[in-house]
Amino acid sequence: MKKIIVNFCPTGMVPNKRETPHVPISVAEIVEQVHEAYELGITITHLHARDDNAIPTYRKSVYRNIFESVRKHCPDLVICGSTSGRNFPEFEKRSEVIELKPDMCSLTLSSLNFPKQSSLNAPDIIQALVVKMNEYGVKPELECFDLGMINYGKYLIKKQLIEGRSYWNLIFGNIAGMQAVESHFKLALADIPQDDYVGFGGIGGYQLPTFEWAILNDVGVRGGLEDNIWWNKEKNELATNIQLIKHIHTLIKGEGKEFMTAKEFGDEGFYNTKRN
Amino acid sequence: MKKIIVNFCPTGMVPNKRETPHVPISVAEIVEQVHEAYELGITITHLHARDDNAIPTYRKSVYRNIFESVRKHCPDLVICGSTSGRNFPEFEKRSEVIELKPDMCSLTLSSLNFPKQSSLNAPDIIQALVVKMNEYGVKPELECFDLGMINYGKYLIKKQLIEGRSYWNLIFGNIAGMQAVESHFKLALADIPQDDYVGFGGIGGYQLPTFEWAILNDVGVRGGLEDNIWWNKEKNELATNIQLIKHIHTLIKGEGKEFMTAKEFGDEGFYNTKRN
Repeated sequence: MKKIIVNFCPTGMVPNKRETPHVPISVAEIVEQVHEAYELGITITHLHARDDNAIPTYRKSVYRNIFESVRKHCPDLVICGSTSGRNFPEFEKRSEVIELKPDMCSLTLSSLNFPKQSSLNAPDIIQALVVKMNEYGVKPELECFDLGMINYGKYLIKKQLIEGRSYWNLIFGNIAGMQAVESHFKLALADIPQDDYVGFGGIGGYQLPTFEWAILNDVGVRGGLEDNIWWNKEKNELATNIQLIKHIHTLIKGEGKEFMTAKEFGDEGFYNTKRN
Repeated sequence: MKKIIVNFCPTGMVPNKRETPHVPISVAEIVEQVHEAYELGITITHLHARDDNAIPTYRKSVYRNIFESVRKHCPDLVICGSTSGRNFPEFEKRSEVIELKPDMCSLTLSSLNFPKQSSLNAPDIIQALVVKMNEYGVKPELECFDLGMINYGKYLIKKQLIEGRSYWNLIFGNIAGMQAVESHFKLALADIPQDDYVGFGGIGGYQLPTFEWAILNDVGVRGGLEDNIWWNKEKNELATNIQLIKHIHTLIKGEGKEFMTAKEFGDEGFYNTKRN
């Protein structure tokens, strides 16, 4: 039986305080919620930074404050920074966070559409990001919204741009991506190299059903307000990050399973090789 | 038993005369090869135009010459024009061909990566293209490289931007798309609305294996030099368009099946409603 990876994504690029008071935006809020989740039990935290106006930022100066405080309070937690190009497509901007040497950084493996906009990740940018990650001892978090992205990740592995065991973050329920249905869950999972690690996330109302299927099937999960701000399908009760993490642990225990500690995961090769 | 749709794609945007003398580039060459394929038996022809320098063009003036000659020689053939934005992303350019009122125009249902470049199809562009197609009586050819594109097509159907039975063109084997393997073939097919029409295409060395699986499973095919210029896996024998169409007919007959004539398909609602 595999231990369940719990990847905590508290903030993302979209939710704001007008929609939900529970989304952590400032460095202090992010660090506090990550710390609380860490005490409950998480394996990885996938972090996005916001500037003083709560707008997503790529700036190292903000990420540095977050990473240093998280390291201080949760020394063995695996930290993953976002290299999303959704709002800043330029390589220099989106790759700045890599220079801080977090343990991992996200690597979205193709271009795709969200409901209202495209997210451009051209092949040369993807390859440049992974080269820079290798240079800074950072492991890629292989982010896939569809089967083709899994194939492109396997291509990078074959090209030896990615080495060792990988962690795949599969996101279900985007309007132009894989859906949160059993046939898609199963096929996507079957396409992942057998010895690699996997976490499933679900967007919007698909978050909770995705958790259930994943945990039942010994697959890791990614959870937090980044993917859905609502607790219920009717969208009249807001979720909190801590509530989501507690719910994940209830599901894990209900199945008689265990979560994987950050230390166990980091020791499998997911700490930055140049970690101080 | 379903009749097999044969969608002929002789030219595309990539092959050129330096790579293969067999790719039709001029209006006369395209019309001649379409006519010969039509005599052998095809249902649809999916056409791209080239300018005098053999560069892909969006211009109505070139498409008009092709469409008029094809109509003259193959009056009941279902003609599909390309609205690809790979080389000209602007809506005005890529949608110009719709104004010629071909029977169908391609509609790629999300952004994606090819091996060396991205192809941007933002949600608002996709929706504007289908609105313009509706205005000109053109049916969309729903082009999907991955599961999420199928989902987005179903979303457009649910929004009633697309009405009636649809034709889906599923392309396998792109590096960042669905692969030409049975698990992907089966799942993609299962995701298509039951009464709709489907054609499978395979890129590069996946073209012939895709034909075989599709025809065995009563699924239509798309074939031509657009998807692969080689006849064999070793890439030392060039294919011709007519050889590919003959091969498709050999496979169809070998399975004791029949192809669907253009007239049969057009009469199912795939002729331009404003056809002269």
